[in-house]
Amino acid sequence: MTTDERAGLRDRERVRIDVSAQDGEARTGTLWTRRGPVPTPAFMPVGTAGSVKGLLPGQVRELGASIVLANTYHLHLRPGEEIVRELGGIQAFSGWDGPVLTDSGGYQVFSHGERRRLDDDGVTFRDHIEGSERRLTPARSIEIQEALGADIMMALDDCTGKPTERAAAAEALRRTTRWMPVNIAARRDDSAALFGIVQGGIFDDLRQESLEATAAAGFDGLALGGVSVGEGRENIRRVIAEFGPRFPAATPRYLMGIGKPDDLVEAVAAGFDMFDCVMPTRHGRNAQVFTRGGLLNMRNACHKSDPRPLEEGCGCPACRQFSRAYVRHLYVSNEMLGGILGTLHNLWFYLELMREMRAAIAEGRFAAYRQAFHARLAEGLAP
Amino acid sequence: MTTDERAGLRDRERVRIDVSAQDGEARTGTLWTRRGPVPTPAFMPVGTAGSVKGLLPGQVRELGASIVLANTYHLHLRPGEEIVRELGGIQAFSGWDGPVLTDSGGYQVFSHGERRRLDDDGVTFRDHIEGSERRLTPARSIEIQEALGADIMMALDDCTGKPTERAAAAEALRRTTRWMPVNIAARRDDSAALFGIVQGGIFDDLRQESLEATAAAGFDGLALGGVSVGEGRENIRRVIAEFGPRFPAATPRYLMGIGKPDDLVEAVAAGFDMFDCVMPTRHGRNAQVFTRGGLLNMRNACHKSDPRPLEEGCGCPACRQFSRAYVRHLYVSNEMLGGILGTLHNLWFYLELMREMRAAIAEGRFAAYRQAFHARLAEGLAP
Repeated sequence: MTTDERAGLRDRERVRIDVSAQDGEARTGTLWTRRGPVPTPAFMPVGTAGSVKGLLPGQVRELGASIVLANTYHLHLRPGEEIVRELGGIQAFSGWDGPVLTDSGGYQVFSHGERRRLDDDGVTFRDHIEGSERRLTPARSIEIQEALGADIMMALDDCTGKPTERAAAAEALRRTTRWMPVNIAARRDDSAALFGIVQGGIFDDLRQESLEATAAAGFDGLALGGVSVGEGRENIRRVIAEFGPRFPAATPRYLMGIGKPDDLVEAVAAGFDMFDCVMPTRHGRNAQVFTRGGLLNMRNACHKSDPRPLEEGCGCPACRQFSRAYVRHLYVSNEMLGGILGTLHNLWFYLELMREMRAAIAEGRFAAYRQAFHARLAEGLAP
Repeated sequence: MTTDERAGLRDRERVRIDVSAQDGEARTGTLWTRRGPVPTPAFMPVGTAGSVKGLLPGQVRELGASIVLANTYHLHLRPGEEIVRELGGIQAFSGWDGPVLTDSGGYQVFSHGERRRLDDDGVTFRDHIEGSERRLTPARSIEIQEALGADIMMALDDCTGKPTERAAAAEALRRTTRWMPVNIAARRDDSAALFGIVQGGIFDDLRQESLEATAAAGFDGLALGGVSVGEGRENIRRVIAEFGPRFPAATPRYLMGIGKPDDLVEAVAAGFDMFDCVMPTRHGRNAQVFTRGGLLNMRNACHKSDPRPLEEGCGCPACRQFSRAYVRHLYVSNEMLGGILGTLHNLWFYLELMREMRAAIAEGRFAAYRQAFHARLAEGLAP
């Protein structure tokens, strides 16, 4: 690392959150990483295989993203972490010059891997591409993430537990806690940050136990994991609202894999700093675009000759130049540009939401912002 | 049209070619259109359905394109020319602010339409999307092209004739000639240019007859059509070399649907000014990228960890930032960005070729350029 890239970090710091303003539990500030600052609350576009689908890294930057997420499982399988390392790490490889957070690979093993056998030291599985048998352990996950060149790594956790079944949630929590020191001991790159993950399903006592164990383990940041995996939206909201404020204030707080725009507003209200979700990019490819009043399905015939932009007043590259009529035509004709424009718009929507919330918190009007956001959404789509 | 947009055109001119330098038969200059100038020789990226596949119009412009082609058949079926007209024409609709040339739709009717019945007044067919019966005549083609807002329209011709069968070629030529005045009489928009198409297959006497008829018909420009439809490369090359120089010098000369980079060098050598081809965009999506030594298949394992750009010294947005290793990874992982980067590179390759030829002609060294181009290609791919 050069001094320049570490600017903002002090000796031996791997990451630091500076909270510049707080409004209720919501907070805004800067997450310092070895590869530059990230204004928080921050949304991280998902670049699964080392590319935010359909966009050039310069476009992602122009939308206002300052950090992206890459998936360890996917990059491990293709092209393989050794190739990424050989090419100079994920930034040089992918052309994204800002900070990169990688997940541990665990979640993808459980969603894509086949014939999984979980034991107390890791998980054995067959990959979904070649079908070859592979093994992921905390030490192996850290090794892969370091080879990829992640600026923020995630500890391997057990995310198999059904969050609504107490015995399963407790078992996943036990294993996750057992793996914490193994993750930490495995690190070799002392400038990359490592975040731990709080498990515990929908059970407050288990969540609290996990939070305490994770906070005590020596991680550089904490994440709330195992949410949005089938426990229902009310349960998610409750866990977020209840536990966000309990996360140590001096630590970056990352809510994993969430969510819809209104979920993000609630998560920011609970004091979370960092977010990721495939929704804006995946929906963008599938002709679903976000507006303040809800999702528009751009394949609908009602947009056929509509000269308006996807959303009135939106400053994204799609809305600045194109009509709904054109965007609909592109989707209906299966033109690549449809998915590109939808992705540009949706990511802008998420990143703009973050900009608005940062400003609202800084100016002490977050409660009013939050209320207005939900009220507008409840009004629904404009005709 | 505003005065500004007509700058370069004199009263009642719809298009004009100013030849600023000639070198052998090759020529360079400016094609003036009602929507601005086009440096020639010019390559026109193909935007079939109103989008150069995978690219934003700003990217197409940044690559150096100054005119694009759109397909009348596709836009007629989806979204329909009335919607394009309602949204302000193809430029306002698609966000491309330069000149647009549309084909007549005839070629696509013959390649995509079903149950075609050709008669002396037009063609009846079922479209390949909805299967509904439709009819295309010269008057209908012009009407659609005007509704789309084309700056240069193409006359409907009969392109059914097998170019190597004399009777069929003669019949197609007869019908094409018969339709010429019908195309011309159908125009309502007096500022859009209309080009006629020379048919005749591989038969010099038929080509000459068609050229004379087309030149005399009163078109604003002339195109060589019915090439590259199965007659073999040597025959194509011969027709191009033989007939390019016979096209009237004062007229824009458009070679339709051609071709590979070395075909374009030969066509420029024969005095053609304008070209279109789907090859750079289609190949780009299919992992085939152009280099001076020939096509690279970017799915090949040999690129797996290659840190070099697609082509050394290339100034395209893909080569300026990304390695072959990354581009290969994107294609192998079916990431959209692979096709986008391949398209950016290939279109740059074609447009750069045009820039080089314009400079070589202007500086009187086109013969040397042409020889060096073919020699480099004959050397083949670098290891």
